[in-house]
Formats: sequence, C-alpha cells, structure tokens
Amino acid sequence: MTNPEQMLESLGYSLPEPAKPVAAYIPVRRTGNLLFVSGQIPMREGALIAKGRVPSEVSMEMAQKCAVQCALNGLAAVKAAAGGLERVAQVVRLGVFVACDGDFTQQPQVANAASELLVKVFGDAGRHARAAVGAPSLPLGAPVEIEFLVEVRG
Amino acid sequence: MTNPEQMLESLGYSLPEPAKPVAAYIPVRRTGNLLFVSGQIPMREGALIAKGRVPSEVSMEMAQKCAVQCALNGLAAVKAAAGGLERVAQVVRLGVFVACDGDFTQQPQVANAASELLVKVFGDAGRHARAAVGAPSLPLGAPVEIEFLVEVRG
Amino acid sequence: MTNPEQMLESLGYSLPEPAKPVAAYIPVRRTGNLLFVSGQIPMREGALIAKGRVPSEVSMEMAQKCAVQCALNGLAAVKAAAGGLERVAQVVRLGVFVACDGDFTQQPQVANAASELLVKVFGDAGRHARAAVGAPSLPLGAPVEIEFLVEVRG
Repeated sequence: MTNPEQMLESLGYSLPEPAKPVAAYIPVRRTGNLLFVSGQIPMREGALIAKGRVPSEVSMEMAQKCAVQCALNGLAAVKAAAGGLERVAQVVRLGVFVACDGDFTQQPQVANAASELLVKVFGDAGRHARAAVGAPSLPLGAPVEIEFLVEVRG
Repeated sequence: MTNPEQMLESLGYSLPEPAKPVAAYIPVRRTGNLLFVSGQIPMREGALIAKGRVPSEVSMEMAQKCAVQCALNGLAAVKAAAGGLERVAQVVRLGVFVACDGDFTQQPQVANAASELLVKVFGDAGRHARAAVGAPSLPLGAPVEIEFLVEVRG
Repeated sequence: MTNPEQMLESLGYSLPEPAKPVAAYIPVRRTGNLLFVSGQIPMREGALIAKGRVPSEVSMEMAQKCAVQCALNGLAAVKAAAGGLERVAQVVRLGVFVACDGDFTQQPQVANAASELLVKVFGDAGRHARAAVGAPSLPLGAPVEIEFLVEVRG
C-alpha cells in the first residue's frame, strides 16, 4: 500500500484540521481495532460548501464534491485518532445519507465519489461495505452526511 | 441448528447469485468475525421487483416481499463471503430503510418480513437488533433497503 | 466512574422496565464485548410521549424530551442485557433519526439531549461517535428513534 497521505496529496487533496469535539459527542470512538467516525458533513474552513437538497437545490456534481469533502473530513478524524492514515488496516463501512427530493434515486452516484476516493487512497484496503439512502434534510442543511467505520492495525 | 440452506429451500426460497462487486464498494467487508453487508435492494434477476414509495405506490404486501428479497440477496452475499451459511454464528443487526410517504409509520411491519425469514433460517441465532426508519427515496427507486451485520464462526 | 444508576437517580430519572422482545427482532444482540441495541422510540408506560414531525407537529423542546426517553429505554435494554449499567465500558455510537419537515436542519440539537444524558451518566465513557439525520417518518409516528452501540467489560 502506498503511503495514503502522499496519495491524497498526489490527487490534489489536503486534509483539513480535524474538527474539535463538539458538545457531548466526539469525532471518533475506538473499540478494539475499530474506529467509529461520527457523521461528517461537507464543512470546509468552517462553512458548508453547499446547502440544500439534491438535485433541486444542489447538482449531482456538487453533491459529489460534498461527498468527497465528507471523506476528507472523515480521514482527518481518522488520522488524528489513529496517529496517521498508514495505521488504517481497512475501511469497513460507510453510511451515506443524501438530502434529496422525493424522486431522486441516484444516492449511489453521490456516494461513489467518497468511495472512489477511499479506494484511490488505500487501494483494496479502501473497499468497503456501504449503505446509501435518502433523507428529507440533514444537519445545518448539509446535502450529504457520511459516517465511517475503519479498522486500524492493532 | 438446521442447515440454513436446506431450511431456505424447504421454505420455497432459493438464493440468487451473489451480486458482483460494483465500482468502489463491495458487497461484504469482514473485520474479525463480523461481516458488514452493504445495503441490499430488492433486485431479482437484474431488476427491482417493485419501485416507489410505501404505501401510495407500493402496497404493504409488496413491501414485505421486497424486504424478503433484500434478505435473500443479503444471505447470498453472506454465503459467498463466509463460504456457506452454516458458518453464520448469529445475525447481529439489521438496518432497514423504507421509502415511504410522510404519514407512513409501519416500517416495523415491513422489516418484520426480513427479520422473520432470518429466524426461520437460523433459529435463535437469526434474532437480531434492528433499526427501521423511513426515507424519502432510495437507490434506483427501491421501496426497501436493508443492510446486515452478521457474525461468523472464527 | 460514579455508579451510573445512582447518577441517573440523582438526575431525577428512573429506568423503565426493559421492553419485551417483539416478534423476530430483539432489544439487544451481543457480539464479543459489543452490545447492538435496537432502535428505541420514546415509549413511556406503553405509549409514545409525542407523535409527529419536528418542528411543525412536535417542538424542539419536546423532541429533546423524546431523545432523552429513547436514551432511557436504551439504557434499560443495556442494563438487562449486561446485568447492570456498571458493566458498560463505553458508549461507542448513536444513530439518531429525527422525523422532521424538509426544512428542519437542527437534528444535532435534538440528538444532543440523548448524548448529554449519556455523558452525565457515564462521564467520559459516555462520549460517543454519532450520526444524526432526518427522516420523513418513523415507526408508530415517533418523532425520534435512536439506536445504540455500547461496549461492555469482558
């Protein structure tokens, strides 16, 4: 496996500062070798990069950018909790929620943007199980929310 | 425990071919003895057996058939990943999403169809924790999506 | 860590009787040291304490009371499964669903009521990863549904 942080850089991405713990919940909880990562929304430098429902208010292209931002934020949280992305043994599961109109059925295409980034970064270890579903609305008006389950080396 | 595949046959069900890996996510990711199974939609022979929201577009009876099909597809994925359903130690959790109208509150009745099949197939080992919720829409217009968490023997 | 049940009492809460197993699913499934707790709705003494969507039919304040009731019901299930809340090593994850109007984006504020209770009861061990999302509707018309993942001592 290539160094995942170098791979991210080579793809033109940089990890954000991990979000600070907010209120009563925390970005990552570890049990055994599993890291449960809280639902990430597409915040960048303190603001959502888009708001609203897909596709009436947010385009597919923007929704995919949101999914990538969620993945970057999740990776930043994993890096902080694990002490470096090279500690990731495998990505186990993604839970993907897309705020969407009632006739939108392309949640997988939105989620693919996050899934594909993880495979680019981690190779086969980045492949994961996934559930992608619609939601009428998400926190702060986020178009996408993604939670992550990651296994790290013991 | 009776042989679960014989039990399925005796109930008149046959397992589909497991779905091929699609794009960046995979049907099942194993960590330790846990199999995380991706969200399954009621595909049969390459097509959804129903599309739309419950109950305005899809009846309760059809939604329950969809839940059963999701369970069959999940079992096919488990069988392929575990090397046979007799390797299942217990079903741990189901996440059930029902595409529904805003006044529909019988998600548990839909989910029961999948839960009851698993208990018939695995006996007490098929009993599981579950969350069943509504969604405005699901991938490809599926009325039901179910993800599975299964423990296999070490 | 203070005795969590005494802490609950000192906060003025008492645990309900754990819900009986219903149909094919069960309140808690254990795998290893992990307890997967089924989605809890705000039932108290056999009835929902509120019904409908937030905020048009259920106020934020009532939604937060619902989240607390979900947490109490979840703790009752954990207590029954683990043989006492003092067996809880840490709360790992909450999945929070809020039945809401399409323009409601304060799911985290609803979820905080449950998260904060868990931190009061367990201290730092009560801090958890969390995903909070909207749903068009939930079982029986519940405004909130919360599932729990808890680690117990081996």
